[in-house]
Amino acid sequence: MQRYFINENQINNDIITITNEDVHHIKTVMRMRLDDKIIAVMDNKLFQCQLINIGSVVEAKIIEEISENNELSVNVTIAQGLVRREKTEEVIRRITELGASNYIPVDMKRSVVKVKEGKVDRWNKIIKEASEQSHRNRLMNVSDVINLKELIKEKPKYDLCLFAHVDQNKNPIEGYLNEFLGKNILILVGPEGGFDPTEVKLLLNNGFFMVSLGNLILRTETAPLYIMSIINNKFGE
Amino acid sequence: MQRYFINENQINNDIITITNEDVHHIKTVMRMRLDDKIIAVMDNKLFQCQLINIGSVVEAKIIEEISENNELSVNVTIAQGLVRREKTEEVIRRITELGASNYIPVDMKRSVVKVKEGKVDRWNKIIKEASEQSHRNRLMNVSDVINLKELIKEKPKYDLCLFAHVDQNKNPIEGYLNEFLGKNILILVGPEGGFDPTEVKLLLNNGFFMVSLGNLILRTETAPLYIMSIINNKFGE
Repeated sequence: MQRYFINENQINNDIITITNEDVHHIKTVMRMRLDDKIIAVMDNKLFQCQLINIGSVVEAKIIEEISENNELSVNVTIAQGLVRREKTEEVIRRITELGASNYIPVDMKRSVVKVKEGKVDRWNKIIKEASEQSHRNRLMNVSDVINLKELIKEKPKYDLCLFAHVDQNKNPIEGYLNEFLGKNILILVGPEGGFDPTEVKLLLNNGFFMVSLGNLILRTETAPLYIMSIINNKFGE
Repeated sequence: MQRYFINENQINNDIITITNEDVHHIKTVMRMRLDDKIIAVMDNKLFQCQLINIGSVVEAKIIEEISENNELSVNVTIAQGLVRREKTEEVIRRITELGASNYIPVDMKRSVVKVKEGKVDRWNKIIKEASEQSHRNRLMNVSDVINLKELIKEKPKYDLCLFAHVDQNKNPIEGYLNEFLGKNILILVGPEGGFDPTEVKLLLNNGFFMVSLGNLILRTETAPLYIMSIINNKFGE
């Protein structure tokens, strides 16, 4: 059943009011009719609803709350050195599908781009669409751009902090995941140019573990999908 | 070290002649000079070479054969219902990076596109670039478009044939991979609209096993990346 993420302002007693692009989606893409059913998702709660008014806004009446949890059993934060716009959007879309909880763009030494204002809105639109399509219970959060030192200061929030770096000393991510008993994982991926040696040193000195992602050299936009696929497979069912 | 895939016509004794786009890459992108080193890859063999002539073609002298194997220990064939051009290219690029051996586009009931002539050249260009970038030893093969019955006839070539289908009866791909002792795996992914019920029946009746890829619903272009990430992680090091 098609699902739509809503916020609390859209609920009034047992009536949900749907506005903006979702109206277009319901009327034109899905071609729904009165009495058709949808799932409205808010704060990890799922409500099965029936359409009772299809006009410039759509109104739906809540039939019942349903229990269905498709989320992973761990919260995964993917942090990534700033990369080009299309790549960022691609990564955000795919890791949303694969169940990530947070995405943090990090301004790093070898990042060749800077994010301009307003991108977060665009990213949130991609996340909403991908979450509805993949049947998630929660929306992934995207944070503002921070730098590496600011990221390192966030370390206490996580049970495990890893960074994926191509290096002779291969230490597969698998090992850390197999032994993981906590809830919150942070994994940092470099920008196109990779990590600067001073950044590697800083991370190692602050309790981040360096992991490899196999023998083949993955592009920076492929690495988060690889990580999330493995974690989804391990913590998803 | 930068690698370039070559064919046997480009080797004459210990001299390799590089032509076409690779010349542009060596001269303009990499800005290489005489005596700089490259790796030439042919038929799973790697040769370290030194540039001895940089003109309208580039000539390189073989210094030594080197042993380095980044390939997975299994041969993975990804078959996929025909999808839109950009998605096909994206999938081909990423599964090449992740170590797939073959890609078979399959004309299925719910495929909304048909592949026109000449696309295979474009795909092979993408594969060569992705293979050089990810340090593969072999080029992935792309086959011509076939239909589902033709694919099923190829079953004897494989030790295990799976298809990834969203279904109530969840049977994680993990289980099959953990017990896999063979060499050649075929995994079929549906087109955007998924499998037609008659196709599911046909596959099941012909010894294909139905597997799930986690609780979340993955897009058809994400599914091959998920599968290849898990296999790369399991059979890559």
